[in-house]
Amino acid sequence: MAENFVVVDGGVVAPKGFKSNGHKDRKYGAALIYSETDAVAAGVFTTNKVFAHPVALSKDVLVNNNVFRAIVANSGNANCFTKGGMEDAELLVKKAAELLKIPENQVLSASTGVIGRKMPMDIITLEVERAFENMDLENSNENASKAIMTTDAFPKTVAVEFEVKDKKIRIGGIAKGAGMIAPNMLHATMLGFITTDIEISKEDLTNSLQKATDESFNNAVVDGDMSTNDTVYVLANAQSGVKYTDCKDEFDEALTYVSKELAKMIVSDGEGAKKLIEATVYGAETKEDAKKASMSIVRSLLLKTAFFGADPNWGRIAAAVGYSGAEMDMANFDIIIGDISSEKQAILVKAGEQIADCGTPELKLAEEIMKEDKIKIIVDLKMGSFENTAFGCDLGYEYVKINSEYTT
Amino acid sequence: MAENFVVVDGGVVAPKGFKSNGHKDRKYGAALIYSETDAVAAGVFTTNKVFAHPVALSKDVLVNNNVFRAIVANSGNANCFTKGGMEDAELLVKKAAELLKIPENQVLSASTGVIGRKMPMDIITLEVERAFENMDLENSNENASKAIMTTDAFPKTVAVEFEVKDKKIRIGGIAKGAGMIAPNMLHATMLGFITTDIEISKEDLTNSLQKATDESFNNAVVDGDMSTNDTVYVLANAQSGVKYTDCKDEFDEALTYVSKELAKMIVSDGEGAKKLIEATVYGAETKEDAKKASMSIVRSLLLKTAFFGADPNWGRIAAAVGYSGAEMDMANFDIIIGDISSEKQAILVKAGEQIADCGTPELKLAEEIMKEDKIKIIVDLKMGSFENTAFGCDLGYEYVKINSEYTT
Repeated sequence: MAENFVVVDGGVVAPKGFKSNGHKDRKYGAALIYSETDAVAAGVFTTNKVFAHPVALSKDVLVNNNVFRAIVANSGNANCFTKGGMEDAELLVKKAAELLKIPENQVLSASTGVIGRKMPMDIITLEVERAFENMDLENSNENASKAIMTTDAFPKTVAVEFEVKDKKIRIGGIAKGAGMIAPNMLHATMLGFITTDIEISKEDLTNSLQKATDESFNNAVVDGDMSTNDTVYVLANAQSGVKYTDCKDEFDEALTYVSKELAKMIVSDGEGAKKLIEATVYGAETKEDAKKASMSIVRSLLLKTAFFGADPNWGRIAAAVGYSGAEMDMANFDIIIGDISSEKQAILVKAGEQIADCGTPELKLAEEIMKEDKIKIIVDLKMGSFENTAFGCDLGYEYVKINSEYTT
Repeated sequence: MAENFVVVDGGVVAPKGFKSNGHKDRKYGAALIYSETDAVAAGVFTTNKVFAHPVALSKDVLVNNNVFRAIVANSGNANCFTKGGMEDAELLVKKAAELLKIPENQVLSASTGVIGRKMPMDIITLEVERAFENMDLENSNENASKAIMTTDAFPKTVAVEFEVKDKKIRIGGIAKGAGMIAPNMLHATMLGFITTDIEISKEDLTNSLQKATDESFNNAVVDGDMSTNDTVYVLANAQSGVKYTDCKDEFDEALTYVSKELAKMIVSDGEGAKKLIEATVYGAETKEDAKKASMSIVRSLLLKTAFFGADPNWGRIAAAVGYSGAEMDMANFDIIIGDISSEKQAILVKAGEQIADCGTPELKLAEEIMKEDKIKIIVDLKMGSFENTAFGCDLGYEYVKINSEYTT
């Protein structure tokens, strides 16, 4: 790749000085991520006005403290809208702090699972204990990424490495999320935990995370529902010996890459999804317009089902851009559909003129492309110079099956 | 019912002086609605920036003329984003005007079907001719309502009658729509054609239609996609001999009722839907907030699939209200679920306190209610005095099937 970094193994334990592990027993799981030395932290959270207890707790801890050592997370229960939920959230943190022998206010937490059901604290604290055992295992990153899964079909992990003045810096992450993935959030959209050994201030880390999130998790759509529990954390423990101020662009680029890869894994794992859809809108009058139009494409239920059925019903792309709220002129815009894995591209609309109709080679080519696994939609609005890429997936029978039987 | 009107048969031919008929042959159909005498007309249209040729044409005709005599509509092709589409839209109107022997600028038109495919004008004009034959048939309203169907499972028609000073006024309507039903539009969301024999000015009719649409079609959601072709027309031919100024409230109430009934039929016929969901949000700070919160509930894909599976996953209601953008306080609001056909109600959240949890009678009752066909969700935000009711449906395997194979 053309980027200034290489992809490495290890996920959240790839950066120096981090340990991790997780354990899951049927519905319930827990994961721990631990820094051997003091780290700074940043977090982004759901903007839903109904939010879970661990979100409320960790937001507060994050504001009031400057040193962090660990993240604890559980799956199977969201600890949202539950009686005594704040006490349960505090208990979860307390358990992790006791095991790791660190102060409670140095632990960030997150929960994912069903809303409105009391946390089974006996089961969950047991899972935390099990996660704590054998933190040095070879596959501890894999265990952690699996322990936070709910409806996910596969664990999500990525890590990169780059060099500054002959020193290596690493960024690693794990994420979970397959449903309740939504657009138009100011902040995060699922659980994502990132570690890095760079030396960075809390303020810089917060800014870098917000920028990376806007280009990645906030561009990802599975079903348009915004969760009460979305959280992304970054811990940075300075062990690489490299200062952020010496490699701002490289670090931001690498952090955005890690976040984008995790976001793409999430949409590729959209409940029951088989296809990754990347929608890029060019030529928008504003960045916001580019975002609205690209998100509208990946959000459209009619398009998602058309992708599922490989139906080249491209009028739905035009309709989705048209109702997105972005400024556009239907007499002058382009729609192109392409296969990400090859160079195949079909021009459907050119300067507002319909190119693809029944029997045309363009429609035939579009039909072929619709059968691929990774599909690119390109829309040029020709109104200005802003662009945005949103990530989505198809929607099929499996999505209905998973979500119609979730709590039963 | 407690309303000041009674439901009568006949749909668009129930009001005095209207004729109608339709014909459909496999994919393509056409309908005509005709007033024997001059009528005033009002219309509301999609706000999608990509809109069909008949929308562009009829908007223009509606602004520039004061007398109307007919509506012509076709199904099977949306005439949107097609080469020569405006000429085709004009041809459709011309054909209707010739048959009915009226000026072209007294004909309103609408199309529904696939986008981006050239209109098969030979087939469609033949269907208009067939619709024109036997306009006096007993079942002409039924024929018209069937001719405009696309993925609809059943035709949609309703009519009401009320008396003012011993004279009868009637309002009748037909509608089509099952997919591409969307929220947050300023105007209409599907095809709806309404006739009435009241005497009313164009301005009053426009205002009454806009008010009725806001409370009905604009509160209806099937999949959140906004069509390029949504249109609602009303024709009023004064034949009842009653002036609008003598019965403003009664007329507005009856028009809203007709529009709501048609809207409810559309969501009940949401592609593959089996259940009608009515979400009422009380106690909102503003009308806009009430609308946002209620629409968010019926729009949530996670909730729609939960209704399909009769899964009492009520946390998704809280989440949907939370991300709707409406002002709320999660520490003080109520969520109730009820069966519309009986008096059964389960309180899930009371003043911000979780009432329904595993094993509680409330959750058990909620589970029973979720199995019913007509479900009511009630949310009291306790922030102010505004309310809104939105209409939605469940989403199951059939929706995926229909939409993944639409053009193929």
